[in-house]
Amino acid sequence: MAAKDVKIIGAWPSPYVMRPRIALNIKSVDYEFLQEQMGTKSELLLKSNPVYKKIPVLIHGDKPVCESLIIVQYIDEVWSSGPSILPSDPYDRALARFWAAYVDDKWFPLLRSIAMAQGEEAKKEAVEQVEEGLVLLEDAFVKCSKGKNFFGGDQIGFLDIAFGCFLGWLRVTEKMNNVKLLDEAKTPGLCKWAVIFCSDVAVKDVMPETEKLIEFAKVLFAKFKAPPPK
Amino acid sequence: MAAKDVKIIGAWPSPYVMRPRIALNIKSVDYEFLQEQMGTKSELLLKSNPVYKKIPVLIHGDKPVCESLIIVQYIDEVWSSGPSILPSDPYDRALARFWAAYVDDKWFPLLRSIAMAQGEEAKKEAVEQVEEGLVLLEDAFVKCSKGKNFFGGDQIGFLDIAFGCFLGWLRVTEKMNNVKLLDEAKTPGLCKWAVIFCSDVAVKDVMPETEKLIEFAKVLFAKFKAPPPK
Repeated sequence: MAAKDVKIIGAWPSPYVMRPRIALNIKSVDYEFLQEQMGTKSELLLKSNPVYKKIPVLIHGDKPVCESLIIVQYIDEVWSSGPSILPSDPYDRALARFWAAYVDDKWFPLLRSIAMAQGEEAKKEAVEQVEEGLVLLEDAFVKCSKGKNFFGGDQIGFLDIAFGCFLGWLRVTEKMNNVKLLDEAKTPGLCKWAVIFCSDVAVKDVMPETEKLIEFAKVLFAKFKAPPPK
Repeated sequence: MAAKDVKIIGAWPSPYVMRPRIALNIKSVDYEFLQEQMGTKSELLLKSNPVYKKIPVLIHGDKPVCESLIIVQYIDEVWSSGPSILPSDPYDRALARFWAAYVDDKWFPLLRSIAMAQGEEAKKEAVEQVEEGLVLLEDAFVKCSKGKNFFGGDQIGFLDIAFGCFLGWLRVTEKMNNVKLLDEAKTPGLCKWAVIFCSDVAVKDVMPETEKLIEFAKVLFAKFKAPPPK
């Protein structure tokens, strides 16, 4: 597929934008990466996602697809030029979808709340909640991976992409708040998985360096006096 | 499939519980309906959905599946004993998933906000927002249905189930707040669709009567002094 047929509207620091980029890498599909500038929205973005006006948007031919996890499923269904991203078994698929939704709806908002916490007590509580979520995800990892490297088994799957895209911001949160969230004692599987995931060929050029992300976070927080936007 | 192999933990007034029930009806799969009592949570529910402790849960054999739209997709993937619920085309599938997520994440919270609105001005604003959402959904209906009866075409599909399950609470909101939300002039397609959807054989025995739902809503609001819980 020529790059001109496939475009991603996005921005490099966005965890949500990483998702379709990793999925396209897995499928060996070239794409044009159209980066939005911080604080502005392009005409193409407004036209392609009039409901939410948010990145990422995949444009395939002349058709826009919005919402990161919906895009990943679309990519998986359209291109057979690489391994399947969703598991083949319906129950495994339901589990992957369940935990992906948990990561988006519950866990990542908790991670963001660490940066927003007012005072040490509130921050401590937010950290504990994030850690509790990671213990749940460790349990999900053990069940889904069945002793293999990834949630998806031998290869990166849907839940790997959904959760893994937040590893950069997890590290930023750890460093900027001087806390340890991924812990060898409590979440040994996730610690090992995180290293393998980030060094995978489909991920490594997409996952931002932590120091670069911290520099971006400082600018962003100073500008909006708030944690990173969705 | 014998009923003992398939169970739904739910409650009749819940729009989310309607979703897997309609999906199982479409697939002609018998199921046992285990109703939770208002204000309590059964041991089976707590064991089957330890993360959210929420209905609905589908129990298939000994496996629990949680989250209503994930359950609907699971049912569609497991049983071929009826028409497909998700569209066959990947782009149509992405559109159905997009609008189903819109209904859950944006539109229904707006509908709930009418009941919560403090004062006439706030209520008027909430009603306007719900109506704007319905205009978006009318547009989606025109595009997805392509002149047929349902979002899914000739038969009830994913988005029909996702949105249609809220028609009971839409009517309750209209009656209890003396407002008109589904409007022949602004949303003619949806008005016609709502009648056909509610009278469909897979839906009519699952969709609560409006008066019965209003009685339930009065008890619920009096008990919790708030609109219906998710």
